Amino acid sequence: MDIHRPTLLINRAVCERNIESMINRAQKSGVRLRPHFKTHQSAEVGDWFRAKGVAAITVSSISMARYFADHGWDDITIAFPVNLRELDDIKSLAGQVKLGLLVESEAAAEALVREINDPVDVWLEVSTGYHRTGIPWNNHNEANDIASIIQQRSDFHLRGLLTHAGHTYAARDRDTIRHIYRETLVRLLDLRSHLAVQGLDKLEVSVGDTPACSVIDDFSGIDEMRPGNFVYYDVMQTYIGSCPVEDIAVAVACPVVSKRVYDFQPQLTVYGGAVHLSKESVLDEQDRNMFGLVGFLNDSGWEVVNDGTYVKSLSQEHGVIHATQAVYDHVEIGDLLAILPVHSCLTVDILRHDAVIIQD
Amino acid sequence: MDIHRPTLLINRAVCERNIESMINRAQKSGVRLRPHFKTHQSAEVGDWFRAKGVAAITVSSISMARYFADHGWDDITIAFPVNLRELDDIKSLAGQVKLGLLVESEAAAEALVREINDPVDVWLEVSTGYHRTGIPWNNHNEANDIASIIQQRSDFHLRGLLTHAGHTYAARDRDTIRHIYRETLVRLLDLRSHLAVQGLDKLEVSVGDTPACSVIDDFSGIDEMRPGNFVYYDVMQTYIGSCPVEDIAVAVACPVVSKRVYDFQPQLTVYGGAVHLSKESVLDEQDRNMFGLVGFLNDSGWEVVNDGTYVKSLSQEHGVIHATQAVYDHVEIGDLLAILPVHSCLTVDILRHDAVIIQD
Repeated sequence: MDIHRPTLLINRAVCERNIESMINRAQKSGVRLRPHFKTHQSAEVGDWFRAKGVAAITVSSISMARYFADHGWDDITIAFPVNLRELDDIKSLAGQVKLGLLVESEAAAEALVREINDPVDVWLEVSTGYHRTGIPWNNHNEANDIASIIQQRSDFHLRGLLTHAGHTYAARDRDTIRHIYRETLVRLLDLRSHLAVQGLDKLEVSVGDTPACSVIDDFSGIDEMRPGNFVYYDVMQTYIGSCPVEDIAVAVACPVVSKRVYDFQPQLTVYGGAVHLSKESVLDEQDRNMFGLVGFLNDSGWEVVNDGTYVKSLSQEHGVIHATQAVYDHVEIGDLLAILPVHSCLTVDILRHDAVIIQD
Repeated sequence: MDIHRPTLLINRAVCERNIESMINRAQKSGVRLRPHFKTHQSAEVGDWFRAKGVAAITVSSISMARYFADHGWDDITIAFPVNLRELDDIKSLAGQVKLGLLVESEAAAEALVREINDPVDVWLEVSTGYHRTGIPWNNHNEANDIASIIQQRSDFHLRGLLTHAGHTYAARDRDTIRHIYRETLVRLLDLRSHLAVQGLDKLEVSVGDTPACSVIDDFSGIDEMRPGNFVYYDVMQTYIGSCPVEDIAVAVACPVVSKRVYDFQPQLTVYGGAVHLSKESVLDEQDRNMFGLVGFLNDSGWEVVNDGTYVKSLSQEHGVIHATQAVYDHVEIGDLLAILPVHSCLTVDILRHDAVIIQD
């Protein structure tokens, strides 16, 4: 490959397989798939979804909503609490696309009611236990109060309850994911029942995390799923149990710049550090921080080395690989190695503008 | 401040004070300062150095060398092992500026001797214990062999021995930094003596890490220092003992989007996550991962809150702040907070293109 610097590789075949698989999972349960596009942030990858019938998407910032609106997407939910400092941009988007917004405070609800001229969909963001943002699931009164503010605008559509159960990312087996999913569902439906008693009926339920969406087979009771990471997956998802390593659709091609044995341990250092891969890590089976898996490049993409070789540390531009003797002997300075990222969303956010798409 | 999204703030007064302080430290010891520009990567900040008499710089990639060469810098060391996949770019830079290169393998030495048309300075990269890259300090024969290859080119200048003692970043007190610095110096001088016996004399010695350069008072025995991070410092450097929190010259202004009490703990969530701050963390005094300090903005920059409030987690776009009741009560949704980054090099690498410089 004619690659000089750390470069994102996207394996289109794997990526399309991941997309199809998630579409099938949603269809089987009769649930609407509104994929989260924060992972790829790419108009081109978006087109692969569109070609398979996806028409509604999720993003996590107003800038992303603007980008995809400019690329022809007209049904967009911004799954992030309304940022009062971007009301002008929200106003402009609301005039252009069918816009979904998340509200979890009276302050934000009041600002929308006051400032936005066009109709929007509003979701109440609920925390079912992850506790990053969102109305606590058992705080019925607050949910009702915020809903009442939204209902001052007859042209606003109060769509329902939306949550991101991000605590599935701490899972390391499928049973834990299933447990969190069931708890999430019970809590959302409980809140929905309480709100229905107070006259708020027909509220939809939307859930989002890739681990649950990859593992649960029956989504009865929910209306919409919004996974994002599944399009590329990553090393972290293999630890969580969401996917096998073969489903990872991205890697970073990195030039080897050093080959050394220090203290009897073979080591390879690549040009490819925290400013390329991000500093995300995961604890491996031996409780070591690992910053990526290593693979050899081939014509159809890469083949992961599964012999104990891993990225053991990252500095700004360096990636340091703890290598087995076999891998060490096989690699020369100047070669390219594939590094599979721990968290593809972060790696792709950095390197997406110069990605190479590996076609079939 | 008219800020809508996570935005890097650079406090120019603090930054200039940091620059002057390091220039004074170098002058007092009679050591050449060749500051590492990887931290700021900014032509404008570079001009502040230039105005104070700095003429020679360090960078960590060929792209950075190209950027600063295009902004009038003509004496540049690339402190990263030569990447054989960028020889064409190195060739072009060597024809344009006084270029310093790091070599730590026979493969790279041979490639330079064969491919580069113009004279360059060559440094042998040595590992004195950090073991990221570099010839082990006690491997005299390898150092000599690589030097011999370089000397095939009479127009190349074998400048000396260069190391980055990055293990000072694991220090949490000044005595540890001093110990590592002394060991580094002893090991470099030992290798230099051995090489002198073999006819390689007049080799210079260059060291680089910000902790040692900030803490050591007497640099006798070395010729050049290459610290970079000191220009901005960061939360990690305060934990290492390199600087007080008042020396931190950068922060990220982040809009508050959520204000919540979960499980009796006040929490603020800002728009400002791993794609803005980077996922770097440091263990605090209570062994918790912390991803940034929090401050209130004011006319001259920010004032750090020193009451136990800290950034406890980051996801892609969210920063979650564990807040004291006092800070919680003081902040409203829509306010801006200053987040002081754990590792300024990584945060600045992401946000530098839209930075706001706070002038006096």
